[in-house]
Amino acid sequence: MYYFNSWDSHYKQPFGAIKTGDVMKINFSSTIQNIKVKFIIRRDFGQRHEFDMQLIEEGLYSSSVQFDVGHGLYFYYFEVTENTEWSAVRQYYGKSDTGGEGVLYLSEHDVRPYQVTVYDKDDQAPEWYREAVFYQIFPDRFYNGNEDDKINAPKPNSFLYGSYKDDPFYVKDETGGIARWDFFGGNLKGILKKIPYLQALGITAIYLNPIFLATSNHRYDTNDYLEIDPMLGSEKEFKVLLETLHQNGMHLILDGVFSHVGKNSRYFNISGEYGLTEGATKSIQSPYFDWFKFTDYPNDYKSWWGIKDLPEIDKDNESFRAFIYGKKASVLKKWNDFGIDGWRLDVADELPDSFIRGIRENLNAYPETVLIGEVWEDASNKISYGKRRNYILGDSLHGCMNYPFRDMIIRYLTGGLSAHDMAHQLMVLSENYPKEIFYNNLNNLGTHDTERILTMIGLENNENAIGLMFSLPGVPCVYYGDEAGLDGGKDPSNRKFFPWDNIDSKSYDLYKKWIAYRKSEKNLKAGEFSTFYANNILGVLRFSKDEKWISLFNPSLDRISLSFDAFTFLQEEVVDDELKTLLNQIEIEGKSNLIIKSK
Amino acid sequence: MYYFNSWDSHYKQPFGAIKTGDVMKINFSSTIQNIKVKFIIRRDFGQRHEFDMQLIEEGLYSSSVQFDVGHGLYFYYFEVTENTEWSAVRQYYGKSDTGGEGVLYLSEHDVRPYQVTVYDKDDQAPEWYREAVFYQIFPDRFYNGNEDDKINAPKPNSFLYGSYKDDPFYVKDETGGIARWDFFGGNLKGILKKIPYLQALGITAIYLNPIFLATSNHRYDTNDYLEIDPMLGSEKEFKVLLETLHQNGMHLILDGVFSHVGKNSRYFNISGEYGLTEGATKSIQSPYFDWFKFTDYPNDYKSWWGIKDLPEIDKDNESFRAFIYGKKASVLKKWNDFGIDGWRLDVADELPDSFIRGIRENLNAYPETVLIGEVWEDASNKISYGKRRNYILGDSLHGCMNYPFRDMIIRYLTGGLSAHDMAHQLMVLSENYPKEIFYNNLNNLGTHDTERILTMIGLENNENAIGLMFSLPGVPCVYYGDEAGLDGGKDPSNRKFFPWDNIDSKSYDLYKKWIAYRKSEKNLKAGEFSTFYANNILGVLRFSKDEKWISLFNPSLDRISLSFDAFTFLQEEVVDDELKTLLNQIEIEGKSNLIIKSK
Repeated sequence: MYYFNSWDSHYKQPFGAIKTGDVMKINFSSTIQNIKVKFIIRRDFGQRHEFDMQLIEEGLYSSSVQFDVGHGLYFYYFEVTENTEWSAVRQYYGKSDTGGEGVLYLSEHDVRPYQVTVYDKDDQAPEWYREAVFYQIFPDRFYNGNEDDKINAPKPNSFLYGSYKDDPFYVKDETGGIARWDFFGGNLKGILKKIPYLQALGITAIYLNPIFLATSNHRYDTNDYLEIDPMLGSEKEFKVLLETLHQNGMHLILDGVFSHVGKNSRYFNISGEYGLTEGATKSIQSPYFDWFKFTDYPNDYKSWWGIKDLPEIDKDNESFRAFIYGKKASVLKKWNDFGIDGWRLDVADELPDSFIRGIRENLNAYPETVLIGEVWEDASNKISYGKRRNYILGDSLHGCMNYPFRDMIIRYLTGGLSAHDMAHQLMVLSENYPKEIFYNNLNNLGTHDTERILTMIGLENNENAIGLMFSLPGVPCVYYGDEAGLDGGKDPSNRKFFPWDNIDSKSYDLYKKWIAYRKSEKNLKAGEFSTFYANNILGVLRFSKDEKWISLFNPSLDRISLSFDAFTFLQEEVVDDELKTLLNQIEIEGKSNLIIKSK
Repeated sequence: MYYFNSWDSHYKQPFGAIKTGDVMKINFSSTIQNIKVKFIIRRDFGQRHEFDMQLIEEGLYSSSVQFDVGHGLYFYYFEVTENTEWSAVRQYYGKSDTGGEGVLYLSEHDVRPYQVTVYDKDDQAPEWYREAVFYQIFPDRFYNGNEDDKINAPKPNSFLYGSYKDDPFYVKDETGGIARWDFFGGNLKGILKKIPYLQALGITAIYLNPIFLATSNHRYDTNDYLEIDPMLGSEKEFKVLLETLHQNGMHLILDGVFSHVGKNSRYFNISGEYGLTEGATKSIQSPYFDWFKFTDYPNDYKSWWGIKDLPEIDKDNESFRAFIYGKKASVLKKWNDFGIDGWRLDVADELPDSFIRGIRENLNAYPETVLIGEVWEDASNKISYGKRRNYILGDSLHGCMNYPFRDMIIRYLTGGLSAHDMAHQLMVLSENYPKEIFYNNLNNLGTHDTERILTMIGLENNENAIGLMFSLPGVPCVYYGDEAGLDGGKDPSNRKFFPWDNIDSKSYDLYKKWIAYRKSEKNLKAGEFSTFYANNILGVLRFSKDEKWISLFNPSLDRISLSFDAFTFLQEEVVDDELKTLLNQIEIEGKSNLIIKSK
């Protein structure tokens, strides 16, 4: 009766997010005569506007909207008024559960609008980044590069593991807090020595978990932003690592943890390690006093998620901002000048937009650096602390860690998500993110904050998980050890030491194969993206004018045979004769995937 | 009116414990005429016997008893019947609160008898032992002798301390059990390398906490009695250690832990480390099955003090006995043949007397070895599990760890015990123990099972504590690190790593001085013992025919001046002209002690 599909260029142009100032063209079709169609749009948390749509041909109504009032989210739907003999019937057409095609609502109160993300600028990350294959290293757990295997500068009252094979373990006190921190003793020299290993695997860039002086083994409790933790090595060793990486065409980004500091930091100094008169807790004259929010000085204070080890910073404080990203003598300047290639911003969704913009402005002086944010959800419409976040609309983050991909992959491969739903949810993400952001996102199957992918899906699904990560748009990031077959549940089991003498060759070969694909296949890096499905087979199409790459995934145990007709395409317009030929007759082994390329 | 004093040779001969077959002569005096005195004696848990005492001179009644019915404890007191005009008044004379002199009781029911310990044989330990100055080493915490400071063979899923300065810490699970064991990594090579240190201090023998394969850091959970824990070193290294000690005129005794084993031992094997068919929990055919008492096989079993890590052994089991002390291929044979100089028996008071006798019989083939038992109380009259223990009456232990001394010293120096009471309690012990046992006891101010002496008494009392330990009869044993000024409360704080780069010179010098005294002064090793006091000054007299050694202790803060008349002697008969001269005019600084010797 009525029809609209935000993924179909007959109905909406351009696809997905729209740049400020650009025009969105919308068509709406109807098989019923004598109706009036209104296009209704509301700016995020803003007012409702309505436009009469023009009948441009039989059964087709059209409108155009220019987004010239600023970036942000906009929400739209349609009002259809049918004039009958006795009265006018008013109905609403809005987004369906799955996106793309819509459904009819009887009341405007119930209608689910379509989202359109309006962004300021096409913010393509540096080319090295877009082409990269990342590797995330939790430095304490990767490799100890000391000749004698000694551990650099162990911390007072900490524990060292007796063997690299030990299971990580939190030593807790009666209240559940950490009583002593546990270390394996991996270090920067260890990473340096393993560059040949990473290169053989095909890795081109490293995302390094925090390396600044801290009390814990994860080092998210920064004690000094200007000092490398001596357990990890010296500034000189870090310099050598960076230079060696660069000489090998590799890059490195650091973890920027600016939401909070360590309670033992030189800024907070609760234990007095930095002297009895230094730091916010020891003197209200301290230059750092204003960085924190004390509820009962000095013992009670705002801390990150209530974890007293991590006093929270007031990110609106100008002196803190200057310290982090000021042009002179700031934390960013120091390490950018050192030659790092970018930052991953910890809890980006908890940092004020203006703070992130300040960081980005600093980084703009280093045009080859990248800025990636930690966000766990669809970053296009996340609301944090009651505010919609604008960090992917330009001049902010280049991209985000793509946890939604990981979640979908796990649920799809373990039976919690059908190919139909997976295909649709992927399209929704693709539609919501500004395109360059979507391609800038850092895609991971796991991180230091999640269970290991192998533990979530089992070995039998490993091949498909890796294939999916490398087939979907974005920059893949391998969590250290996933390629070696490491398993493990939640923290700390997901932070085992790298099993150097027990690398699982099957996992390794799969990663190596897909990394090689990514390097040789332009479409895996830059190709357009669309999805399709048949039964529980998911298809990922990556294409450019003259070439196609198709990945087909079979999460079931059975071999499946399909002809082209079995497939449903979420964007019919991607179907051409070549695609029909390529998908003409398909056979996929159980728990396996099939790659099909243009001849 | 009536008088008896068990410490006075006018009233009792010989002093103290009596050898079986020997005669005890008892006198009782009275200023009242017309009385009948009965000597009443009861064997431990046995029948009451009474003897009429003979009036041998005016006011003096006498009896003699020959102890020819076997070793054990006997208890005696006096019945006095006074015939008056109208009736006979019966009263009882027994031990007072403090011992020595007695008091009158109106009812036989209330009378506290005197104890006399009857033993089989004068069991003097080997001369090297009697002259020794011991040093107790908890091997994980003493010294790592590896050139590169590496730790030998760390155990799976254990923690190593990051620094030797770290405070020991138990890593516990939710139930309070140990989740992971913690190690500093001291080893046998470390002891070897510190022999020169020990020699400079004056140490002549080492008591080593357990060194056999175990799971924990204390190694009281033996996993294999025939293997040295590889974290500590090899058999070869142990051999070298023994040989080097012997070459330097030093000796070493091991800790024999035979009451229980580790749950992961090859005998019990609960975790299956020794294979899935070995050990008592894995097969009822196991040769070790009968060693244990299962209440619900294999999961529930009798364990030492309910600690499930430590399954208890049935020490009456003949196969276990043969394994521990059999003539061939036994644990004792293996290590005795290695050349060790004796054993300290863990929880000796929980081992059957016959088991201890079996061990001693084995050791008799090595006449220069010594056997010391862990007993926490007055070992002469301890009742364990409802039975009086006979392990110091001959053919059993040479001596015991002298925890009662430690307790008295702490209480005396910190104000909980007066000099009067301290003097009396010392005499009671001296009276109750067979003399050779008393002199064989291993005297410690602290062990791995107690708070550090410094923590109990404070630095200001250190000088007196050391002086007391070396002045009292027995073999002194320095707990590693006490001489270096280590402090610490209960386990694990009493097991800090030896502070090699922070040895407290004041403590060290005090120990060194007293060790030198012991070596040069024959009376400190073998002299007769008596005590006296004045106000809160305690005097310890050690004497032989021609020489006296007097230690006077002042636990107060004030300098104290005394003339001879101020002193009360618990045994008046030790007073002679020389003593009067030596003690004629005394001045002792506060918190200090004074040594006075025959000219």
